[in-house]
Amino acid sequence: MEEKCISNSRRCYKQWFGFMVLIMSSCVSYVDAVWPMPQMISSSMARYTLNPREFLFQYSSGSSVQSGCSVLDSAFKRYFPLIFTDYSAARPRQHDEWFRFPFTVVVHVDRAECEDYPDADSSESYKLSVRSGQAALRAETVWGALRGLESFSQLVYQDDFGEYFVNETEIEDFPRFQFRGILLDTSRHYLPLHAILKTLDAMSYNKFNVFHWHIVDDPSFPYQSSTFPDLSSKGAFHPSTHVYTQIDVKRVIAHARLRGIRVLAEFDSPGHTQSWGEGQPGLLTPCYKGTVPSGTFGPVNPANFSSYQFMSRLFKEVTSVFPDSYIHLGGDEVDFTC
Amino acid sequence: MEEKCISNSRRCYKQWFGFMVLIMSSCVSYVDAVWPMPQMISSSMARYTLNPREFLFQYSSGSSVQSGCSVLDSAFKRYFPLIFTDYSAARPRQHDEWFRFPFTVVVHVDRAECEDYPDADSSESYKLSVRSGQAALRAETVWGALRGLESFSQLVYQDDFGEYFVNETEIEDFPRFQFRGILLDTSRHYLPLHAILKTLDAMSYNKFNVFHWHIVDDPSFPYQSSTFPDLSSKGAFHPSTHVYTQIDVKRVIAHARLRGIRVLAEFDSPGHTQSWGEGQPGLLTPCYKGTVPSGTFGPVNPANFSSYQFMSRLFKEVTSVFPDSYIHLGGDEVDFTC
Repeated sequence: MEEKCISNSRRCYKQWFGFMVLIMSSCVSYVDAVWPMPQMISSSMARYTLNPREFLFQYSSGSSVQSGCSVLDSAFKRYFPLIFTDYSAARPRQHDEWFRFPFTVVVHVDRAECEDYPDADSSESYKLSVRSGQAALRAETVWGALRGLESFSQLVYQDDFGEYFVNETEIEDFPRFQFRGILLDTSRHYLPLHAILKTLDAMSYNKFNVFHWHIVDDPSFPYQSSTFPDLSSKGAFHPSTHVYTQIDVKRVIAHARLRGIRVLAEFDSPGHTQSWGEGQPGLLTPCYKGTVPSGTFGPVNPANFSSYQFMSRLFKEVTSVFPDSYIHLGGDEVDFTC
Repeated sequence: MEEKCISNSRRCYKQWFGFMVLIMSSCVSYVDAVWPMPQMISSSMARYTLNPREFLFQYSSGSSVQSGCSVLDSAFKRYFPLIFTDYSAARPRQHDEWFRFPFTVVVHVDRAECEDYPDADSSESYKLSVRSGQAALRAETVWGALRGLESFSQLVYQDDFGEYFVNETEIEDFPRFQFRGILLDTSRHYLPLHAILKTLDAMSYNKFNVFHWHIVDDPSFPYQSSTFPDLSSKGAFHPSTHVYTQIDVKRVIAHARLRGIRVLAEFDSPGHTQSWGEGQPGLLTPCYKGTVPSGTFGPVNPANFSSYQFMSRLFKEVTSVFPDSYIHLGGDEVDFTC
């Protein structure tokens, strides 16, 4: 069933032409989609081979942060396999891999804030300049450097033979929106820790910077409070498994920080607090049928002084556990019918 | 090809007898192997059904540690799925599962040391008494309580229908050997973080309590020192991927602590330090061929004052990073031929 290309025939010419187009298109291939789209990006057809064995991240000599900077040391380790997606150091060494195509990403950061948390005013701007043998990444803060590393990782592509390339590129970027958040509701449906951590990973690939943790609500109270342990032991879907321990919360905050993500905890109140009542009797407003308590409850009881004491102690804990300068109080849908 | 059982035949009797033995053996089945074997264990044929939906961990009212104790809160969360291995809360609720066979593991700990690290003198003794509806676990320390939870988890078994059981049991236990270690060599073969964490998990199932981390050696220096970053940037198999960042090290120490495991770091010296020389020129003793340096090196150079300064600064960092009261200095196989 095979058709042959007969010399000088029209069909043969068309095949040959198609083949040339294919070759040319493979020659000029490059990544033209960095996501989200940078403020300014320009790239040329000049492309540089990247050799995983000769690829390095480095701090520039004048950078305010140097090796030992937790955020960037961790990012360098994380981005290597994200850039070289199918590279394995365990693969037997090819003779021609050594010393060929060395490439260094040199990172320069102006301000030394490696152990801080990103906040509402953090600069995330960066400049990335990819040239032969080197990419220069400059940012005011480590958070900006993270965004630049993400962009760089998206610029790298493989050809059909598995070789890695990056094109000559210039990027100047800063976020259009300072608040780029994802909300997870862990009250209506408990999410295991690893699902939250994976969400944070995905957020970093999309340069999101706020994890809005709608942690408790009517259906369940999974936050394990050290001041009021009964809130979760009685208000969670399960007191041992469907809770976020203090260690879990620390883990989420640390994982987020390393990706330049703020953790904005929401303790929705005074409505949306049915689950709070399980572990804190007397907190919610009892509803009445005529003059008899109906057994159901409304929002946090504003007529009890103890409610204010409770809220004050709970939020004292919450503000010390979550380092962000904001805590979300919800405040929506307070039911006055009770 | 099927053989039938004909009434009153000898063969039929044997089949029937075999069936009865099977039934009886399934009636008396229980776990009689807790590993490692406790100092004292006794159990009876009385067995109690466990219902995952009505199973709780609790602190006894008189216990020195209560909810908010990081080590035990985390352990409760971890052991639930280890005990109920194929339980899923997502499975539709069976009507008869509710309120039947409630069971509580009540934990009592004498000393409040939840945020400490286990050390060479930590008591790991515990007493476990499993009765109808309740297991009482008493320990001097949270580390002992961890060992007791491990034993309890090993006592639970499933029958052929998937129901969970535990037999009436009394255990009094303390370790025969105070130091029960596993050594991992991450210099000759770099182990990714998750492999170390899984090893720590496996250690806890076997009640091991020391992770001897042979972290550096001749072939590579994966420890990312904040004082001497070149040690890993030049001495590791790869400066970004085959290193343990400070965050990684903290993660290992925290993971180990929650399982009652000490992290005993070994920085083998003054021999076994070839990889140290890569990032710290002048540290190693140069070897000679006649009067000419041969280009090879021996151990850390004892004739240089700078060697002592370097070692002092490195170990100052190491002792502040690793909280254990011991650091292992190696000291083996120092080559004097150079």
